[in-house]
Amino acid sequence: MNLFERVREIALVNSVSQILSWDQETYLPEASSSYRSEQLAYLAAHGHRLATSDDFLKALGAAEEKNEPTDSSNVAQIRRETNRAIRLSTEFVTRESTVQSSAHHAWIAARKASDFSLFSSHLEKLVSIASEKAELWGYENEPYDALLEPYERGSSTQVISELFDHLLKELTPLAVQAVENSKRFSPSLPKGEYPIEAQKKFNARVATEMGFDMKKGRIDTTAHPFCTTLGPDDVRLTTRYMETDFTSSLFGVMHEAGHGMYEQGLPSSEYGLPSGTAVSLGIHESQSRLWENQIGRSPSFWKKYYPIAQEYFPTLKDFSLENFIHYIHRADFSPIRVEADEATYDLHIILRFRIERMLLNREIKVGELPSVWSDLFHESFGFSPANDAQGCLQDIHWSMGGIGYFPTYTLGNINAAQLFATAKKNPEIAKSLDAANYEELLKWLRGNIHQHGSSMDSRSLIKHATGREPEIHDYIQHLQARYL
Amino acid sequence: MNLFERVREIALVNSVSQILSWDQETYLPEASSSYRSEQLAYLAAHGHRLATSDDFLKALGAAEEKNEPTDSSNVAQIRRETNRAIRLSTEFVTRESTVQSSAHHAWIAARKASDFSLFSSHLEKLVSIASEKAELWGYENEPYDALLEPYERGSSTQVISELFDHLLKELTPLAVQAVENSKRFSPSLPKGEYPIEAQKKFNARVATEMGFDMKKGRIDTTAHPFCTTLGPDDVRLTTRYMETDFTSSLFGVMHEAGHGMYEQGLPSSEYGLPSGTAVSLGIHESQSRLWENQIGRSPSFWKKYYPIAQEYFPTLKDFSLENFIHYIHRADFSPIRVEADEATYDLHIILRFRIERMLLNREIKVGELPSVWSDLFHESFGFSPANDAQGCLQDIHWSMGGIGYFPTYTLGNINAAQLFATAKKNPEIAKSLDAANYEELLKWLRGNIHQHGSSMDSRSLIKHATGREPEIHDYIQHLQARYL
Repeated sequence: MNLFERVREIALVNSVSQILSWDQETYLPEASSSYRSEQLAYLAAHGHRLATSDDFLKALGAAEEKNEPTDSSNVAQIRRETNRAIRLSTEFVTRESTVQSSAHHAWIAARKASDFSLFSSHLEKLVSIASEKAELWGYENEPYDALLEPYERGSSTQVISELFDHLLKELTPLAVQAVENSKRFSPSLPKGEYPIEAQKKFNARVATEMGFDMKKGRIDTTAHPFCTTLGPDDVRLTTRYMETDFTSSLFGVMHEAGHGMYEQGLPSSEYGLPSGTAVSLGIHESQSRLWENQIGRSPSFWKKYYPIAQEYFPTLKDFSLENFIHYIHRADFSPIRVEADEATYDLHIILRFRIERMLLNREIKVGELPSVWSDLFHESFGFSPANDAQGCLQDIHWSMGGIGYFPTYTLGNINAAQLFATAKKNPEIAKSLDAANYEELLKWLRGNIHQHGSSMDSRSLIKHATGREPEIHDYIQHLQARYL
Repeated sequence: MNLFERVREIALVNSVSQILSWDQETYLPEASSSYRSEQLAYLAAHGHRLATSDDFLKALGAAEEKNEPTDSSNVAQIRRETNRAIRLSTEFVTRESTVQSSAHHAWIAARKASDFSLFSSHLEKLVSIASEKAELWGYENEPYDALLEPYERGSSTQVISELFDHLLKELTPLAVQAVENSKRFSPSLPKGEYPIEAQKKFNARVATEMGFDMKKGRIDTTAHPFCTTLGPDDVRLTTRYMETDFTSSLFGVMHEAGHGMYEQGLPSSEYGLPSGTAVSLGIHESQSRLWENQIGRSPSFWKKYYPIAQEYFPTLKDFSLENFIHYIHRADFSPIRVEADEATYDLHIILRFRIERMLLNREIKVGELPSVWSDLFHESFGFSPANDAQGCLQDIHWSMGGIGYFPTYTLGNINAAQLFATAKKNPEIAKSLDAANYEELLKWLRGNIHQHGSSMDSRSLIKHATGREPEIHDYIQHLQARYL
């Protein structure tokens, strides 16, 4: 087998793991999880063995020697990923997985008890193993660069830090004013029935009309919404339902369908190769946030879809479009990230980014986390969280070893606004958006983002699509227009 | 890794394939089937490689040399399966899979067109490759013995042939009379609503109360009902729904739950080893038919559950229990096996068994199949099928290479009656059955059948449980009591 065949084989093994994970979240009987873990561990080990075998390394060397211009971008990226894999010994990978697994269980208990002390020693190990990994991988300026790389190739701690500093300066007064404005309306959705079956039908209709191909995907129900790819023509979304508010599942579906349309737009003949794979989480999140917020919370979308929603949910009959728009544009300071609105969401992310960096640079100790969190949170939000569960224990990410992941959420917001503003400059796209018709926009995203896979890094891709590297201008304009 | 660890590894790989196959039948998006085939082919090849590798054969040899008495039954069975696997060359396995795959597609088209000539050349290849396989595997008396072995270890063509001859002699007049009797009542279910959601709830309740553990399993919807095991604590059933008749999905669920309780009753610590695996299809079918027919169509079951069914389906309100029992005991000669009742079902099976044997013994030519079918069918049923689709093209089995599979259906019916008659001799079980309470019966099946896995062959197991090798006496008694 040549290199690309081997890479596709590994992708196939990983896709099988994805099927098992999807089933684990959707339909696995409650007493069956322990064997499922064994099945997943077996596939992970098998995939890792394939990706680090002598035969694989030989095939990689042969491809590098052959030096075909058409293959060079794929080969270079496979080399980068392979180096990351082989720099970690089996001993290290096993130790990391053990630390993460027990940390994750401790986090669940600590969050439940709202007691950081139950998690503290685990987080120390997580930070220490993350530092060790950063040293093994190597970095230019600081350890965080190394941890960022697998999530956001082409960016750097320095670049993100500057971007976030700019954003924070603009966002701080904007958020205060948005929350203030929202108080004037304090709108709420009419109490009544929003049957789950009706929500499912409405959500599927919206996703389909946005352009998510239901012949190559589906929507199921899980505790935490996600999007996963099980093959070149098999992209699955999930959402969760509130019987008191249909917008919760709908915006969840629009968000995940944004991820899903990116996956469906990757060149399927390149499936498994870097050229057929999404480039970064910050780009992925730009697609989900674009469809969820730029489209899903826009007045033009609801001008068309609100009367349709009223058919699905007769409870809305006497609730005006204007009040509904106020409702979905409400803003408030919440201690919880996943409940935050657009006006305040990035404050949560910037806080986490700063804390992760301080932890890795040993500027603070793990034991100080609750007080540091509380102080920094107070600085941004004007109040401190009531307890650890609403503070530094709220997110799952660190407990799973995901240090370096958080900034990609805000990069996604920034990229979404910049892409959307650029696309809208095309008069035909602007016109179709006014009519809540999304074919033209999707075509633009397919051509400018999706079809490129990982052939450019994330910053180059944004520059290629918009003429500028990522910057906060369009995002701030969007937030101002929406909230002020 | 020692032999048993290797066998468990192969079982894990196969369980992953089962997950993918289950998903393929239940939730796979319609445009995603081609990559799913690749994933399944990869896992099949991986499993086959593991099961025939030098390391595996060495481990098997070592275990045989060590000769631990507690392991000997497992080791002997692993040897038998391994010999079957290594006697087939990779060239043969690939050729067989190609023949089956194109035969399956041709069968679909032929059945649709009701034209045997479209399938004839494929069936010739299937029979010829089955003969070749029988020669490679070896057999005592005739090729059919070899093909039977993987489905029904411990039986033989001769034994089955004698059993079926006895059965046919009794069954032929019994079926005629049962159909005659049924005409007197010609009962039909009241027309009205049997909502699928209510069917799902009623079925799940019945399955749970029978003893199927829903914490270690689930019920989904597919075009063709089946039961599959995805791990030691993960057994999944499927059924299909008719909006005009709730008994169709219910008996489907009771049948599959019978399979499922067998799987759930296997010793889970032995998962993957022969001692933790069902022994044969004839035993498996005995469990499904016992719950579907001996229990599910019994008056004592409905004495308790009919009033409950009337709550789930108010359409039944004025339909008496007596008429309902007549309805589920109706009998008629149908050309189609899967629509056949208990009184006529085995006539379909015996016909197929005789034809398979004649084909393999070259007593008839493939091209003669439609006329042979028609003649033999007429002999048993008193009329000939209207066309090939209702005749020799109706079943999927041959198109998938499943020659030798059919007799296990009738063995299942015979075994079910013999097991049930034996269990009922226990006064405590008899009493609990009268009250439609199935705990005692299930305990008996667990102890006498399930927990033994494959440690005895199917005939020894029946003898161990009932004191006699399989014989038709109890089955005929059951049919007489039910239909005459």
